[in-house]
Amino acid sequence: MSFLSRLVRPSLEATAHCDLPCGVYDPAQARIEAESVKAIQEKYQGNEDPDFRSRAIEIKEQRSELVKHHLWVLWTDYFKPPHFEKYPELHELFNKATKAAGGGAGGTKSSNDPATGQALLDQIAEIDRIFWETKQAA
Amino acid sequence: MSFLSRLVRPSLEATAHCDLPCGVYDPAQARIEAESVKAIQEKYQGNEDPDFRSRAIEIKEQRSELVKHHLWVLWTDYFKPPHFEKYPELHELFNKATKAAGGGAGGTKSSNDPATGQALLDQIAEIDRIFWETKQAA
Amino acid sequence: MSFLSRLVRPSLEATAHCDLPCGVYDPAQARIEAESVKAIQEKYQGNEDPDFRSRAIEIKEQRSELVKHHLWVLWTDYFKPPHFEKYPELHELFNKATKAAGGGAGGTKSSNDPATGQALLDQIAEIDRIFWETKQAA
Amino acid sequence: MSFLSRLVRPSLEATAHCDLPCGVYDPAQARIEAESVKAIQEKYQGNEDPDFRSRAIEIKEQRSELVKHHLWVLWTDYFKPPHFEKYPELHELFNKATKAAGGGAGGTKSSNDPATGQALLDQIAEIDRIFWETKQAA
Amino acid sequence: MSFLSRLVRPSLEATAHCDLPCGVYDPAQARIEAESVKAIQEKYQGNEDPDFRSRAIEIKEQRSELVKHHLWVLWTDYFKPPHFEKYPELHELFNKATKAAGGGAGGTKSSNDPATGQALLDQIAEIDRIFWETKQAA
Amino acid sequence: MSFLSRLVRPSLEATAHCDLPCGVYDPAQARIEAESVKAIQEKYQGNEDPDFRSRAIEIKEQRSELVKHHLWVLWTDYFKPPHFEKYPELHELFNKATKAAGGGAGGTKSSNDPATGQALLDQIAEIDRIFWETKQAA
Repeated sequence: MSFLSRLVRPSLEATAHCDLPCGVYDPAQARIEAESVKAIQEKYQGNEDPDFRSRAIEIKEQRSELVKHHLWVLWTDYFKPPHFEKYPELHELFNKATKAAGGGAGGTKSSNDPATGQALLDQIAEIDRIFWETKQAA
Repeated sequence: MSFLSRLVRPSLEATAHCDLPCGVYDPAQARIEAESVKAIQEKYQGNEDPDFRSRAIEIKEQRSELVKHHLWVLWTDYFKPPHFEKYPELHELFNKATKAAGGGAGGTKSSNDPATGQALLDQIAEIDRIFWETKQAA
Repeated sequence: MSFLSRLVRPSLEATAHCDLPCGVYDPAQARIEAESVKAIQEKYQGNEDPDFRSRAIEIKEQRSELVKHHLWVLWTDYFKPPHFEKYPELHELFNKATKAAGGGAGGTKSSNDPATGQALLDQIAEIDRIFWETKQAA
Repeated sequence: MSFLSRLVRPSLEATAHCDLPCGVYDPAQARIEAESVKAIQEKYQGNEDPDFRSRAIEIKEQRSELVKHHLWVLWTDYFKPPHFEKYPELHELFNKATKAAGGGAGGTKSSNDPATGQALLDQIAEIDRIFWETKQAA
Repeated sequence: MSFLSRLVRPSLEATAHCDLPCGVYDPAQARIEAESVKAIQEKYQGNEDPDFRSRAIEIKEQRSELVKHHLWVLWTDYFKPPHFEKYPELHELFNKATKAAGGGAGGTKSSNDPATGQALLDQIAEIDRIFWETKQAA
Repeated sequence: MSFLSRLVRPSLEATAHCDLPCGVYDPAQARIEAESVKAIQEKYQGNEDPDFRSRAIEIKEQRSELVKHHLWVLWTDYFKPPHFEKYPELHELFNKATKAAGGGAGGTKSSNDPATGQALLDQIAEIDRIFWETKQAA
């Protein structure tokens, strides 16, 4: 978060993410990991050393897995039946976004193209948009 | 992050956190877990069921550990010698903040008082302030 | 699996679950963990020692989390768009099953009633049924 | 498990694997991971892309480790002194099987030859056979 | 490491534990965790606060699991067939020691009696003695 | 640890490391992992097989991370304000040592040169020396 946005950040913002549940959720967790994924892909493109690339691939694998985990938590723990009724596209959006962070065709685990990292970020941004709409409505 | 702050969030904000290093860091990761810690402490205070409290204590332990981990990563991987020269209090600030998320006296692992969760959040806010100052200066 | 069923188990049965992807998936992974969850709930009911119960709650938390993880992997990595078209109830089935292994009302993390463990097993059995239908059709 | 074998699977089959202990154990957990190991080795042989191979090696490492873990749990937590008396070869069988999933000569971590994955599966099948014999006798 | 290379390995060499294998093993890893287990049991006995005890039980569970893991690694990865020939009691010694760190009767997961922690330490000391004998002989 | 050093190791050495806190800490945990890191780097230098090297890099990454973790635990959980007063260089020593096990320039994650592994061991030896001085003084 930029310094500026921190200043205007309302104090009520905390939401919920552990499975007590504590009630704190934030799509920023998935977004930060996805930004890491894309940054790794860019570094991979700029460095042909095989050892560096081996490390990049391994770390990208872990970061992509974290993206999947954070999204799964939102899908299962934060979103409730009324949300799925109001946003019927939500199931598919999450399914596609988690696939976009996976090892299948076009997924960030198997691809080193930053465009796949960006596509993942775009889907997380869409989830983020809906998430904050539901928070506003609550 | 609130819906409002998202609107004003500059697009260049991504920083770095994996140890490739990819260059993406964000104190929000520690903050979100600490918000969870405090929320768990509040729920603990409002529920006397021993089984609920046992779960709360266990989950708080894990979330506190995540706070420590995210802070350690910032201290070791993001901050460099010039930062420590400019902010001589930084080592002690991180040492105290990670202790504040631990099992010693006043730490969020051993205490169920939301005041300790808030104290932890305050220290993370101070780290966050310095972090964004260094990003501005970069 | 019983000794009898092993004898009649066809050799082609292996499917896929890692995210290479290797192509091996099996709902048995979620089922075995859920059987463990229900067994823990039954042991909890039969033992009033607070230390035993504290351990039971903690271990049940981990096993429930493993159920969620194995189900999420099936939902994201095994099932593809044509499956979701053919089984339109699949998204909701997975969402409910992972909620049933969680910390919300009626979830196996927050409940020590074996009936919640059985409800979780029933939902996994339904997923298992659809899974093997899609394997037959492949 | 195939659709057919599921139909004939007796309902009493659940056993025990967590360390409460809950009493649910099943060699299928080790077998499924080992099937994944062998499938990864086969995919490795069919794809010369160095990035794909780097991912395959890394994921095979993790899956092999899971095989070792599941086997260790069976050896320590399920099998009791009377079993080791009745099956004096059991210690060595487990020691060899866990070595077969390791990084030494012929282990599935260091080898990409599917024959090593099959050798591991064969040893797990032998453990599985003895396991179900002891369950029948119980 | 092959049996031959062990023979020519200088005796002062740091011992080996990762599964490359790197050749560094040291029973101190299991011992340190077991010392922690016993210290937790002593703290448990001296503090009747139920929240403290809940934390103690949870942490003791994790430390006991680490003891089991470190011992399993030694048994599978360090010890080779010639060792098992020379020390025929070694299999049973490891099986009992890992059970002593488990959740069954007398195991350190289920017991809060420091005597069980000491019994575990005694068995690790015996493994340690044999380990260093084999290192001397190498 | 060599056999010789074990003989001269004072028997009172066991200390504390879990976050109950149990009071058992020992820099040997970081040292053993760092020895593993250096041994992996040496094996990497002696083997040009790309698959072996890919495994070596991945395992070295994990072992380096463990070094960082064990050092962070000492820095936050064992060392107290009076120690930092008496040893004002301690913060920087830990910061440099954890950086030496990282992915930046000269860190053991990004370098395969055993000299970086040795440099890490040297820094841990310095921490170890101070640690035991504080234990003597206690």
